[in-house]
Amino acid sequence: METSERPTYSLADIAERFGGEIVGDATVRITQVATLETANVQHVSFFSNPRYRRSLDQTNAGAVLVSREAADATNRPRIVCDDPYAYFARLSTFLNPTEAVVPGTHPSASVDPTASIDPSCSIGALVAIGPGAIIGARTLIQSGSSVGAKVRIGADCRIYANVSIYHDCVIGERVILHSGAVIGADGFGIAMENGRWKKIPQIGRVVIGNDVEVGANTTIDRGALDDTVLEEGVKLDNQIQIGHNCRIGAHTAIAGCVGIAGSTRVGRYCRIGGSAMIGGHLEIVDNVEISGATSVPKSLLKAGTYTSLVPISLHQDWLKNASHIRHLDSLATRVKELEARLADLERKPT
Amino acid sequence: METSERPTYSLADIAERFGGEIVGDATVRITQVATLETANVQHVSFFSNPRYRRSLDQTNAGAVLVSREAADATNRPRIVCDDPYAYFARLSTFLNPTEAVVPGTHPSASVDPTASIDPSCSIGALVAIGPGAIIGARTLIQSGSSVGAKVRIGADCRIYANVSIYHDCVIGERVILHSGAVIGADGFGIAMENGRWKKIPQIGRVVIGNDVEVGANTTIDRGALDDTVLEEGVKLDNQIQIGHNCRIGAHTAIAGCVGIAGSTRVGRYCRIGGSAMIGGHLEIVDNVEISGATSVPKSLLKAGTYTSLVPISLHQDWLKNASHIRHLDSLATRVKELEARLADLERKPT
Amino acid sequence: METSERPTYSLADIAERFGGEIVGDATVRITQVATLETANVQHVSFFSNPRYRRSLDQTNAGAVLVSREAADATNRPRIVCDDPYAYFARLSTFLNPTEAVVPGTHPSASVDPTASIDPSCSIGALVAIGPGAIIGARTLIQSGSSVGAKVRIGADCRIYANVSIYHDCVIGERVILHSGAVIGADGFGIAMENGRWKKIPQIGRVVIGNDVEVGANTTIDRGALDDTVLEEGVKLDNQIQIGHNCRIGAHTAIAGCVGIAGSTRVGRYCRIGGSAMIGGHLEIVDNVEISGATSVPKSLLKAGTYTSLVPISLHQDWLKNASHIRHLDSLATRVKELEARLADLERKPT
Repeated sequence: METSERPTYSLADIAERFGGEIVGDATVRITQVATLETANVQHVSFFSNPRYRRSLDQTNAGAVLVSREAADATNRPRIVCDDPYAYFARLSTFLNPTEAVVPGTHPSASVDPTASIDPSCSIGALVAIGPGAIIGARTLIQSGSSVGAKVRIGADCRIYANVSIYHDCVIGERVILHSGAVIGADGFGIAMENGRWKKIPQIGRVVIGNDVEVGANTTIDRGALDDTVLEEGVKLDNQIQIGHNCRIGAHTAIAGCVGIAGSTRVGRYCRIGGSAMIGGHLEIVDNVEISGATSVPKSLLKAGTYTSLVPISLHQDWLKNASHIRHLDSLATRVKELEARLADLERKPT
Repeated sequence: METSERPTYSLADIAERFGGEIVGDATVRITQVATLETANVQHVSFFSNPRYRRSLDQTNAGAVLVSREAADATNRPRIVCDDPYAYFARLSTFLNPTEAVVPGTHPSASVDPTASIDPSCSIGALVAIGPGAIIGARTLIQSGSSVGAKVRIGADCRIYANVSIYHDCVIGERVILHSGAVIGADGFGIAMENGRWKKIPQIGRVVIGNDVEVGANTTIDRGALDDTVLEEGVKLDNQIQIGHNCRIGAHTAIAGCVGIAGSTRVGRYCRIGGSAMIGGHLEIVDNVEISGATSVPKSLLKAGTYTSLVPISLHQDWLKNASHIRHLDSLATRVKELEARLADLERKPT
Repeated sequence: METSERPTYSLADIAERFGGEIVGDATVRITQVATLETANVQHVSFFSNPRYRRSLDQTNAGAVLVSREAADATNRPRIVCDDPYAYFARLSTFLNPTEAVVPGTHPSASVDPTASIDPSCSIGALVAIGPGAIIGARTLIQSGSSVGAKVRIGADCRIYANVSIYHDCVIGERVILHSGAVIGADGFGIAMENGRWKKIPQIGRVVIGNDVEVGANTTIDRGALDDTVLEEGVKLDNQIQIGHNCRIGAHTAIAGCVGIAGSTRVGRYCRIGGSAMIGGHLEIVDNVEISGATSVPKSLLKAGTYTSLVPISLHQDWLKNASHIRHLDSLATRVKELEARLADLERKPT
C-alpha cells in the first residue's frame, strides 16, 4: 500500500478507460483504491452499500465511485456509474496488475528429469515436481509445493507455497491454487467387511477447468472411479472440502468452510454461503443459492435461495425455547386435539 | 484409467478368486472397474443402489456385480453375490494394487544423521526427518513432509506430500496420512490470568494405531498431559479436527469437516457424519451413529443414531417459520393455557 | 513424559515459588505434572472439576492441587490455592520450559540474500525465505515453512513445519504459528460481470500482534484494501478461517473449526466456541461468548452468551419433531385462532 512512485491517473483518464460520468474536478489525480475510512486524497474509493453512509460523509478520498441513485450523496469529485463495485473491481485490477512471472527454476527445486516445464515458467525454491508432469507457459509455482507424477497444469497458473497436487490430476489455464490446498487426495471410500474397514482404490482424478480459484487449505478429493470435476470459472474460498466424484458447475462460487460430500453435483452459477454442508449423492440445480451455515440433506431441484438455521438468541432465552423443539410433535398433537374439542363445544347448542 | 496393457481376467477367473455365481457369458474379459455410466465392455461395474436403476439399464459394462435380489435386473453378464459393493471393493483392490515402494532416499531430502530409516523405505524429495526419528520397513514418505524429532513410524505406511508430524508422536503400521495432515500440534490449552491468556505446555503425544487413515488437512492435536489416541482401524476423512486428549475407538469412521473438542472419548465402530461437531469432555459409546451437521453438546451413552438439524426450506418459508423458534416457550405456555380454559368450559354445565 | 533425569522439587519448593498452602507432607518430591488417572508418586495433579471426583479418589499422584472448597476432598499431600487450574498452568510452564533456540540456518534452507535474519534465529531444514524478509531475534522456523517477500516477523516467535506466510504480512513478537497455518492468502473478493467472476486484487496485508497463537491449518486472509488484524494475545485453535478485513480484538480466544466471514469485527476478550460460524460485515462487541456450533448472522452489540442450536435427539425422535419446524408459522396461527375462538365461547352467556 505504498503510494510513492506509483503511476497516477486523473479522473478523466479513468473515465475515458472505464466509462462513467465525472461530477466535480476531473483533474484530480489518483494512485490507488482504498476504503472510505482509510482513503486519502490520492485514493479513489467506492460507495455501494448504504450501511457505509457515515463513512462516505467522513471520507478523505480524492474521488468516489457512486451509483446513479447516489450521484448526489457526496460533494467529492466522483464518477457516477451503473455498478460502483464492479467498476471498482475493474479499476483496482488496472491499478494493481499481477506481478510479471520471472522465468526460471530455483536451484533448490527438485524437478524430475522426465517432467516437461515450459521455459517461461517460474519454479520457486524447494518445489518438487514428479515424473512426467507437464507445466504450461508462464505458470508460477511457489516454494514448497509438490506436483505429483503425470500432473498436467495449463498456462498462466499461480500456485502458491505448500500446495500439494497428487498424481495424474489435470489443471486448466489461469488457475490459482492458494497455499495448503490439496488436490487429488484419496476420496473417503471404505467398505466394512468382517468388522474391519477395507479401503477402496480411488482411481479417478481431479480435473479443474480454466479460471478456477481454490482457496487456502481447501481439499478436493480424486474420484473413486470417475473424475472429480470443477468446471471453468468455479471460485472456492478457504477450508472447503469437495468429496470424491463431485462435479461443480461453471461459475459457481463457494464461501469458506463448506463441505460437499461425495458424488454430489452442483449446478452452474450457484452461490453457497460459508460453512454450509451438503450431503452426498445429491443434485443441486443451476442458480441455487444456499445460505451460510445451512445443511442440505436432500437434492435441490428448483432454483432459489435455501436456508436451515436456528435464529441466534441469548443463551438463557435459547435454553427456554429450544428445549421445546424436542416436543414439537406432541405440541402439534395437542393443538390438533384442542381444535377438535373446541369444534365440539362450538357445535353444542347453548 | 488407461486400459491398454493392463492384465485381463475372465468372469470365470474373477468368480474363482472372489466367489459369486456367474450368469451369462463367463468368458467375458475384464481389465478394470468403472461406474455404470462410464463403463465400456472391458469394465465390470456394480449395482447396489436402486437409485441407479436407469444407469443399469443403459450401461455398456462388460459385466455387472449384482445382489441376489437384483439377479435378473439386467441381461448383461453378471456375478450374483451377497454384497456387490464389498465384492467390488475386493475386486478393485485386486485390479488396482498399491504401487510397490522403490527403496531409497532422494538426495534433496534432509535426514538427521541420528534418525534410523529402514533401507527399504522410500524418502521423497525435500523431506525433512528430525533427530532420533525411527521409520519402519517399506514406509513411503512423499515430498515436502516433515517428521519431527524422535517420531516413530511403523512399517508399510504411506505419508503423502506436505504432511507435518510433531516431535515424539507414534504412528503404527500400514497407516496412511494424506497431504496437509498435521499430527501432534499443541492442543488448545490456555488459562486466563490477570487479563492475559497463559499457554499450558502440551506434553502428551499423538499415538496412532495400525491401519488408520487420516485425510488431507486433518489435524490431530497432541495431548496436554496424556496422549491423544486413535485406536487401530480408525478412518478419518479430510479437514477433521481432533482436540487434545481425545481417544477415538477402533474402527470408527469419521467423515469430512468434523470437529471433536478436547478430552472426548469416542467408542468403537462409531460412524460420524460430515460437519458434525462434538463438544469436549464427553463420552460417546460404541456403535453410535451421528448424522451429518449434527451438534453433540452432551455425552451419548446409548448406541443408536442421533440427529440435530433444522430441515432446509426455501428462504422465504424459513423466514416465516424459524422466527417462531424464538417464541416456542411462550407458544407452549399458550397451548397449556388453552387446554386449561377449554377444560373449564367443557366442565361447565350447559 | 520421561521422568528420569528430570529435576525434582519438593512441595515446599513449589509453594515457595507459586504460593498456596501445603496440607500434608511438604517434603514429597515432584518431577512433572500429570492427570489424576495417570499420575504416579513423582507427579503433581490438579482437581478443578467435580466431574473427576472419582479420579481424585483413585489417584496415585504424589500431590494434588486443590481449591479451598476442596481442601479436604483428598488425604494426599496437597497444595490448597485459589485456582488449581491456573496454578497448574504456571507450575507446568515452570516444569516444562520451552526448548532453547539453537541459532543457525540449516544448509538446506533457501534464504534470499536480501532477507535479514537475526543471527540468533534458528532456520530449519528446507525453509524458504523470500527477498526483503526481516526476522527478529531468537525466532525459530521449522522445516518446510515458506516466508514470503518483505514479510516482517518479530522476536521470539515459533513457526512450526510447513507454515505459509504470504508477502508483506507482519507478525509481532512471541507469536506461535502451528503447522499448515496460512497467513495472508487472498481474500475471497470477486465481482460478477457479464456472467463471469472477476477477481478483485487483495492489496491489504495480515497484521498479527504480539503473543498471538495460531493453530494448525488455520487460515487468515489478507485484506482486500485495508489490513486483516489480529490484536495482541488473540488465541486461535486449529482449522479456523478468518476472512479478509476482519479485526479480532485483543485476548479473544477462538476454538477449532470456526469461520468468520470478511469485514467482521470481533471485540476484545470474546470467547467463540468450536465450529461457530460468524457472517460477514458484522460487529461483535467485547466480552461476547458464542456457544459451539452457533451461527451468527447478525451483529451482537451487547456482551453476553449467545446460542443457536437444535437439541440433539435420537434420529427417530428428531424425524417426528423437526418436521414441525417447517410448519411453525401455521401452528402459531392455529394457536392464535384457537385463542380467539375460545375467547368467543367464554364470552357467550351460558
